[in-house]
Amino acid sequence: MMNHLKLFENIVKKHSFLCVGLDSELEKIPSFLLKEKDPVFEFNKRIIDATHKYAVAYKPNIAFYECNGSKGWTTLEATVKYIKKNYPDLFIIADAKRGDIGNTSKMYAKAFLENMAFDAITVAPYMGEDSVTPFLLYNDKWVVLLALTSNKGADDFQYHNEDGIKLFERVLSVSQKWGTNNNIMYVVGATRAEMLKDIRKIVPEHFLLIPGVGAQGGRLEDVVRYGINSKCGLLVNSSRGIIFADNTVNFDRVAGEMAKEIQVEMGKHLTERNLI
Amino acid sequence: MMNHLKLFENIVKKHSFLCVGLDSELEKIPSFLLKEKDPVFEFNKRIIDATHKYAVAYKPNIAFYECNGSKGWTTLEATVKYIKKNYPDLFIIADAKRGDIGNTSKMYAKAFLENMAFDAITVAPYMGEDSVTPFLLYNDKWVVLLALTSNKGADDFQYHNEDGIKLFERVLSVSQKWGTNNNIMYVVGATRAEMLKDIRKIVPEHFLLIPGVGAQGGRLEDVVRYGINSKCGLLVNSSRGIIFADNTVNFDRVAGEMAKEIQVEMGKHLTERNLI
Repeated sequence: MMNHLKLFENIVKKHSFLCVGLDSELEKIPSFLLKEKDPVFEFNKRIIDATHKYAVAYKPNIAFYECNGSKGWTTLEATVKYIKKNYPDLFIIADAKRGDIGNTSKMYAKAFLENMAFDAITVAPYMGEDSVTPFLLYNDKWVVLLALTSNKGADDFQYHNEDGIKLFERVLSVSQKWGTNNNIMYVVGATRAEMLKDIRKIVPEHFLLIPGVGAQGGRLEDVVRYGINSKCGLLVNSSRGIIFADNTVNFDRVAGEMAKEIQVEMGKHLTERNLI
Repeated sequence: MMNHLKLFENIVKKHSFLCVGLDSELEKIPSFLLKEKDPVFEFNKRIIDATHKYAVAYKPNIAFYECNGSKGWTTLEATVKYIKKNYPDLFIIADAKRGDIGNTSKMYAKAFLENMAFDAITVAPYMGEDSVTPFLLYNDKWVVLLALTSNKGADDFQYHNEDGIKLFERVLSVSQKWGTNNNIMYVVGATRAEMLKDIRKIVPEHFLLIPGVGAQGGRLEDVVRYGINSKCGLLVNSSRGIIFADNTVNFDRVAGEMAKEIQVEMGKHLTERNLI
């Protein structure tokens, strides 16, 4: 049961709004793990064990599992099960960028929110309301809707401007009617932190999932300055900067140190704003 | 090796531009198949055997496999392998609606176009160029980009209008620069057949994948009238109308009859336009 308030409680408890991205590419994990039966699961397990104290959320990037076929799906299923069993307070996001006509989105929702125990799934908005709402039919489960992404290609369509309203702004305002701030959050890329100020005018209360801090160039300080609200309202993701910080037998310890470093900085920001 | 001309050759040979959608929901297949080790694969195999003469393409809808978890992926892998082995001339589209930042789209491309032998994958355009181009790096493989979809939600964002240019029109014109009519085709919903006339002004040469004929209400005649070009340029999809036309031990024979009925109508249209 992970609603808006419970998520904030966890942030307060852990002094952290860190989401660890499990972009666990088989080719990039330490080679000594390759002798394991399921090397990627073993990698995830150790990363989670080493970082869970400093994080409130985990975000497996589904592409990195699908590229290993049915084996990859077994790894994904095992990873979600492991987190839910050992750390039930963690919020788990399927970074899947799905979205299709209603009867098909319903099947994706079943796959991620029902069969696997994900708390949330990222969804692409292009196909509109009936492609998103099937994901909103589960109690205490979330849609994380793409609004403004962190990549260069965001310029191609997301800024398309009708009467002064950009497409990503229209996505933010229209989609709010489909759910509440207890079941919709938005992806806003950190490489555009200055945009957060205007975005907060449209969605003052919603949680925002912020990728792009670290490897993609965004700065945590800017994200907090423009994006934080009275319930924190932020989940900041870091993937490669944590999970691939080290490539030796110490990879999990180093990942823990990197996560802790971010958590300490987050704690300072939360303290400065009297949220903890 | 399935380029634009080869696809047209197959259409001429088969008097058909039918794509059979494999939305093979476990709960909807004939119950006598449930005793099989992999009921959905058995269903797909018999549907393909019964319909392949009348179709040029097959389109597994990935959601219907993912909702069965790692088992579903095994079914999907087996289905693609079965088609490629037995009917190598068929064009196989992963209806996956993927799209993410570059390094992630690269992994989805690997999953579908490299590890499995799909010829094409449907991609959502919201994240722009670098989310789409990783799928275009394979010889003779295709991106099928969402332009105008057949669902009600298409109205929410796809018609967002900047200086008279709707978002879906911008998707059509901008994305043409990312590839050629030998590696990009577009999804255009048949429920908007009258729009095809204007769409053909923007993409006269490209193949269009048309869902929404049959169950979703579109008419083949309208699609052909407004959408056909000198190399046919159309793949018209039918899913439920064929694969779930009958629910008995005769389901495959009935599916074959339904496919043939469509093929005969398609043949007439191709003859009328002197394409065969």
